[in-house]
Amino acid sequence: MTRVCVTGGAGFIGSNLADRLQAEGAEVVVVDNISTGRREFVSDLLKRPGCILMEGDVLDQDLLKRAFTGCDWVFHLQANADVRYGLDHPTLDLEQNTVATSRVLEAMRATGVRQIVFASTGSIYGEPIVFPTPEDAPFPVQTSLYGASKLACEGLVSAYATGYDFTAVICRFVSILGERYTHGHVFDFYRALKRDPTHLKVLGDGRQEKSYLYVQDCVSAILTATSFHENEPGAHVYNLGTEETVVVDDSIGVITDYLKASPTVEHTGGDLGWVGDSPLILLDTARIQALGWKPQLSIRDAILRTLDWFEANEYAWRNQL
Amino acid sequence: MTRVCVTGGAGFIGSNLADRLQAEGAEVVVVDNISTGRREFVSDLLKRPGCILMEGDVLDQDLLKRAFTGCDWVFHLQANADVRYGLDHPTLDLEQNTVATSRVLEAMRATGVRQIVFASTGSIYGEPIVFPTPEDAPFPVQTSLYGASKLACEGLVSAYATGYDFTAVICRFVSILGERYTHGHVFDFYRALKRDPTHLKVLGDGRQEKSYLYVQDCVSAILTATSFHENEPGAHVYNLGTEETVVVDDSIGVITDYLKASPTVEHTGGDLGWVGDSPLILLDTARIQALGWKPQLSIRDAILRTLDWFEANEYAWRNQL
Repeated sequence: MTRVCVTGGAGFIGSNLADRLQAEGAEVVVVDNISTGRREFVSDLLKRPGCILMEGDVLDQDLLKRAFTGCDWVFHLQANADVRYGLDHPTLDLEQNTVATSRVLEAMRATGVRQIVFASTGSIYGEPIVFPTPEDAPFPVQTSLYGASKLACEGLVSAYATGYDFTAVICRFVSILGERYTHGHVFDFYRALKRDPTHLKVLGDGRQEKSYLYVQDCVSAILTATSFHENEPGAHVYNLGTEETVVVDDSIGVITDYLKASPTVEHTGGDLGWVGDSPLILLDTARIQALGWKPQLSIRDAILRTLDWFEANEYAWRNQL
Repeated sequence: MTRVCVTGGAGFIGSNLADRLQAEGAEVVVVDNISTGRREFVSDLLKRPGCILMEGDVLDQDLLKRAFTGCDWVFHLQANADVRYGLDHPTLDLEQNTVATSRVLEAMRATGVRQIVFASTGSIYGEPIVFPTPEDAPFPVQTSLYGASKLACEGLVSAYATGYDFTAVICRFVSILGERYTHGHVFDFYRALKRDPTHLKVLGDGRQEKSYLYVQDCVSAILTATSFHENEPGAHVYNLGTEETVVVDDSIGVITDYLKASPTVEHTGGDLGWVGDSPLILLDTARIQALGWKPQLSIRDAILRTLDWFEANEYAWRNQL
C-alpha cells in the first residue's frame, strides 16, 4: 500500500489504524468531520509526509472523490456510533451509515479505487442463538437500528464486490477498548466515578456479558485480513474479538479497583441495557485466527490500558464531566 | 381489518392483494406513482366504497401520512423491481427500496399505525448453500444490489418491530406469476415470440433453476400470515414459494407449446442470467405451510394462467413490443 484513505480517521479506531498504516509506509488521507473524532488524535499523523486531513462529511461526494484519488484502499470506518440512542433519531443510522456507505462506494467507483475495508459490528447478529457466533450463523433478525444499518452497509459492500469486482474486507467488531476510546461502558463508568466516586448507576442488571477487544489487536486483525486478501475480488467477512467475555459488573470491579473507589452500585434492572442491546456478544474468531492473528491483550488488560490512557489524557473526558 | 393501505397497490402483486383485501371487507387505500403500476389494475377496485388511489411517490412523507391515517395495516409492496439492471443505476435500489421503506416506517410511527407487511425476496439469500433454503439459513453474503436493498429494508422493519413494538410480517417471495404479471422471464419470452416466433435469445445457459409461485397463492399466504400474527408485536419472517422448480428451458417449452411456436433457441451462455443472478432459488416453505397454507397451482399451471391473461389483455404488453 502506498496511499490509503481512512474515513472516520480522526476517530477512536480510525486514528489508531491511520497511525499504523502510516508506520507501515503508507500516505494516509484522513476524511473526518471532527464530530466524534478529535484533532488531537491525528496531530502526530499530520506531521508525516503525505498525510493529510480532509475535514468534511462523507455524504459529500466531491470531497470523497478528491480524497480517494490515487488510493489503493479505502478503510471506511466513519459511522454514527450512537448505538444506544437509535430509537430517538431513527433515520440517523440510515443516513450516516447506510447512505454514507453508498456514497463511499460510488466515489470509489468514480475514482477507480476498488479495495475497501468496512468496519461492521457484532450487533448485526441481533440476539444470536449460537455462541460463540460464527460469520455464517443462522440468518439473524435485526433488533437495533444500528445493527440494521450496518447490515445494510455490508449488503451494499458485498453487492459492489460481486457486481464491480471490488475487493472487500468486512470486519465485524465486538466493542473495542484502548487508547483514544471515548464512547461506551468503560468511558461512562470512569466519568461517573470521577464525578461521584460514592455512587454508580448501571443500566440493566449488570450481568450483560460482552466481549471486548484491544484497539491495537483490532488494527492488527484488520491489517492481517487486508494484506491476505489484497487484489482478491469478492467479499471477505471476519469476526474480530477475543475468546473471553466479561460481565458489566466485572468491568466495574476493574475500574473501581483502579480508581480505589468503593461506590454503592445501583442496577436499573432488566437483562438488557437498552432496547436492542444484546444480552451476550461473543464472536467465533476462528476464521481470522486461521490467518495467523491472535489478540495480545486480555479484556482486563485492555480495560487497564484504557484507564491508563484516561489518566494521561484528561482532555479527552474532563470537559464532558 | 377495516382499513388498510397498500403501497405499490396498482402493481402486479399489490393490485391482486388489494382486490382480495377489499373482497374480505377492508377499505383499501392504494399508494402508487403509476410508474410500473397501471391504472387498469385498480379500476375495478376504485369503484368500491372507501377504496381510493393516492397517486404519488412513497418518498413523499406527507402523502404517506395522509394515506396511513386510520389504517390497521400497511402492506408495503412498492419497490424498484428492476432486479437485473441494478449495476447500471447503483443508487436506485437504495433510494426506492431502503430509503423508501424508512419513510414508510416513519410515516407509520407518525400516524400510530404499527402493523406492517413487507414484501421481501429470496434474492436476499445471495447464492445459498442450503436447498431448499430455510428462513434461518446460514448468514448469506449479498450478490445483488436489489437483494442488498431488500435485506436493508428487512433490517429496518425488524428493528422497528423490536424498538417500537410494531407487528411485522416479512414475506420473502420467489418469482411470482399470474394475472397482471408484466415483468420477468415469462413476459420477456412471450413478447419476444410475439415479435418473432422463429428465434428466441436466452440469457445464460437455460439451465438456471427457479421456483415460481402463482400470485393468488402468494396473496393467500400473505393473508394467512397476517391474520395469524395480528396484534403480535415482533418480526415474523416467512418464505413464500412452491416446493418445485423449473429450469428456464422448460418454461420456454411451456410458452412455445402454448403459442404453437417452434423457435430456434439461442443461449448466450454462462450459468447466470446476469451478474448477481441466482443459479438456483428454491425456498423452504415449511414455516408458512405450518400455518395451514398450501399453494394451489403448480408452476406449469401458473405459467399457463399467465399466458391466458396475456392473450386476454393485449394492452398490458402490446405497446411494449
